[in-house]
Amino acid sequence: MTDVPWVSIPAGSGFGIENLPYGVFSLPGELPRVGVAIGNHVLDLAGLAAEGLVDDRRWFASGSLNGFMAAGRAAWEANRARIIELLTIETYRERVEPHLIPLDQVELARPFDVADYVDFYSSIHHAANVGRIFRPHADPLPPNWRHLPVGYHGRAGTVQVSGTPVYRPWGQRRETPEQEPSYGPSRRLDFEAEIGFVAGMPSAPGHPLPTSAFRDHIFGFVLVNDWSARDIQAWESQPLGPFLSKSFATSISPWVVPVAALEAARVAPPTQDPPVLPYLRCDEPWGLDVTVEILLNGQVISRPPFASMYWTSPQQLAHATVGGAPLRTGDLFASGTVSGPERDQRGCLLELTWGGTEPIELADGTRRTFLEDGDTVTIRAFAPTAGGGRLSLGEVTGTVHPSPAFPSEVPGAILGSAGTPET
Amino acid sequence: MTDVPWVSIPAGSGFGIENLPYGVFSLPGELPRVGVAIGNHVLDLAGLAAEGLVDDRRWFASGSLNGFMAAGRAAWEANRARIIELLTIETYRERVEPHLIPLDQVELARPFDVADYVDFYSSIHHAANVGRIFRPHADPLPPNWRHLPVGYHGRAGTVQVSGTPVYRPWGQRRETPEQEPSYGPSRRLDFEAEIGFVAGMPSAPGHPLPTSAFRDHIFGFVLVNDWSARDIQAWESQPLGPFLSKSFATSISPWVVPVAALEAARVAPPTQDPPVLPYLRCDEPWGLDVTVEILLNGQVISRPPFASMYWTSPQQLAHATVGGAPLRTGDLFASGTVSGPERDQRGCLLELTWGGTEPIELADGTRRTFLEDGDTVTIRAFAPTAGGGRLSLGEVTGTVHPSPAFPSEVPGAILGSAGTPET
Repeated sequence: MTDVPWVSIPAGSGFGIENLPYGVFSLPGELPRVGVAIGNHVLDLAGLAAEGLVDDRRWFASGSLNGFMAAGRAAWEANRARIIELLTIETYRERVEPHLIPLDQVELARPFDVADYVDFYSSIHHAANVGRIFRPHADPLPPNWRHLPVGYHGRAGTVQVSGTPVYRPWGQRRETPEQEPSYGPSRRLDFEAEIGFVAGMPSAPGHPLPTSAFRDHIFGFVLVNDWSARDIQAWESQPLGPFLSKSFATSISPWVVPVAALEAARVAPPTQDPPVLPYLRCDEPWGLDVTVEILLNGQVISRPPFASMYWTSPQQLAHATVGGAPLRTGDLFASGTVSGPERDQRGCLLELTWGGTEPIELADGTRRTFLEDGDTVTIRAFAPTAGGGRLSLGEVTGTVHPSPAFPSEVPGAILGSAGTPET
Repeated sequence: MTDVPWVSIPAGSGFGIENLPYGVFSLPGELPRVGVAIGNHVLDLAGLAAEGLVDDRRWFASGSLNGFMAAGRAAWEANRARIIELLTIETYRERVEPHLIPLDQVELARPFDVADYVDFYSSIHHAANVGRIFRPHADPLPPNWRHLPVGYHGRAGTVQVSGTPVYRPWGQRRETPEQEPSYGPSRRLDFEAEIGFVAGMPSAPGHPLPTSAFRDHIFGFVLVNDWSARDIQAWESQPLGPFLSKSFATSISPWVVPVAALEAARVAPPTQDPPVLPYLRCDEPWGLDVTVEILLNGQVISRPPFASMYWTSPQQLAHATVGGAPLRTGDLFASGTVSGPERDQRGCLLELTWGGTEPIELADGTRRTFLEDGDTVTIRAFAPTAGGGRLSLGEVTGTVHPSPAFPSEVPGAILGSAGTPET
């Protein structure tokens, strides 16, 4: 791409003309609407539409991207090409400039309404580490793991935009198999750094999508923090999987990076051995050279490489629909924790502290096994562009707060009756 | 209740004045709207509202119950009381009668938009049978089972109304641990007879609901068939639980029976031992004396008693929200398979045929281990009323069809590439 935008883009912004991620923003006292990030600005698509500068079928004066996402690939491509014209051809400048709003003046909302939320488990390094931690004497990977992208449904209603507080969940957990379960705040609260993709174009019931349908149905990518309460998870998950340990909050980044923006980041994924069944084969390389960074209270504690994911996004899509379940606009599919082979590439505290046995040291001299109230976790990610630069997937951040229902909790207390800690 | 409706109600209809379930119906060529079943008729609430006969805030001229469900308990109670007046006080007859439409003239739609779908596992007989079938030498119940109502999230997007075709899912399954997994149509397709409840009034994030909040937040009950592909389930479920084995279809009955209509069915639930943690305690008896009937191709094959469920609906609600996840209008919570202690009270074929080893014989001389294409499963249920009669929860029915994507499947074929069976 050689077009140079007339709008100034600060070095390292990551929101250059090759990115153009979509989001939903609002100015104080105004209704939310759809915009595209460029440099330090958001381009107000509803404003452009009102002047007839972009095609619009009531897509942009909306509090969610769902209408535009449902319009399909031809509409996405046409709009992307048009925005590049508007931002690079000098003669448009006078009409477009009034619709560039400084990012620091807007509030960003959750960019789309989530239909169903599916979470995969597609990093072989993560799955193997979890296996080693919980089943040290068995094969770390379950027998199915190399044959299909293991996944499950999460709670769509608690997917929240970056910056929304994360309340420490209360629930049941059991310290050891000999003890009775107790009730109280989770003591092993964790993050999981993931990348998700969101469906735009729906599909028909009973008609599985092949891996080659990815670009036609998937609108873009977001960063995901799949907050997890490890103590609740360990106790509740047999035999039907995680439930309340995950359902209290899942945070996503406000900017949805179009699939087209990540074309230059595509690389060959790891070799799959044994070979996958035909419905999971993919003719094109769909590994993504995206580097994730995880910050705890502002300090980078891990840099997981997304290119190391064993299962790719088109394989996840093909698997999720193979049984005939149709895709709905707004379906969110998260990758599962992104972990690389190295110690400083692990994507959650469970792995980074090896089940809580090896605390990590922070720059302020404190140590962490799991998250404490007041801790802030930020995930950001970067990918190469065709022009040799790098684009940003933005960031997803969240700060842990005590439960608002039990604000005066006594840490470690066992609860005698709901709301009344027994110390 | 002593009011006698002026509208004629056939004996055994189950849709008497003590029931008044809500649904969404349409007449040919007209938009769907909200109605209440009475005898062989549906009372058109949108029509009554247009004449000012019922309070309405755009609740009833709608293709879903969600607006009315969100209005809360006071609105539900007021509307129920008003409908009883309109149907029992003779002076209303002239104005109301034009809004009674014969049920056989209408089409019934899915009654509400499903927000999140949660499926529990709350029958001790079902859980123990499944444990005995899959883990014959271990404790049939997992260690957590008596301490919390085990549950997981299912797919909201494939919840469909009774009568919608059920397409046999394709997917991966492995016959034995020694074999490689193969891809093809499920060979162990099953039903699960369940009863679900649907949320009306939302709750706030971070504020768990006590069991006593059940009536304020829950609008009513539906019948649920949680179709399940046992071969896919056995292979995919480790370690994160069921995914595609359940996500292809979940059928619900078209009539939502108000919580108030089941007051007379409340009985003491089974004793819980060990005692539950305080947040799961319930001062009122919330067992429900509902008899479920399962018909396979028109023949009753089981009569599971819902009163035998170990975990009650208010306990399920308290558990689902204890971690702080808020309730949304349209959240659907299913009980899990309803099975009683007797052989002819089992709620799914997995149990009825003991993992496929003991086929059941049908009246037409054929035998079944699991469902065949063309089979129709119908679930209905009945509960006592205060007046000594019985009310119906309606029915949920579905017929199994081959996948429309692979209509010419060769039964038992192994697929070489998507859509091309290798025989």
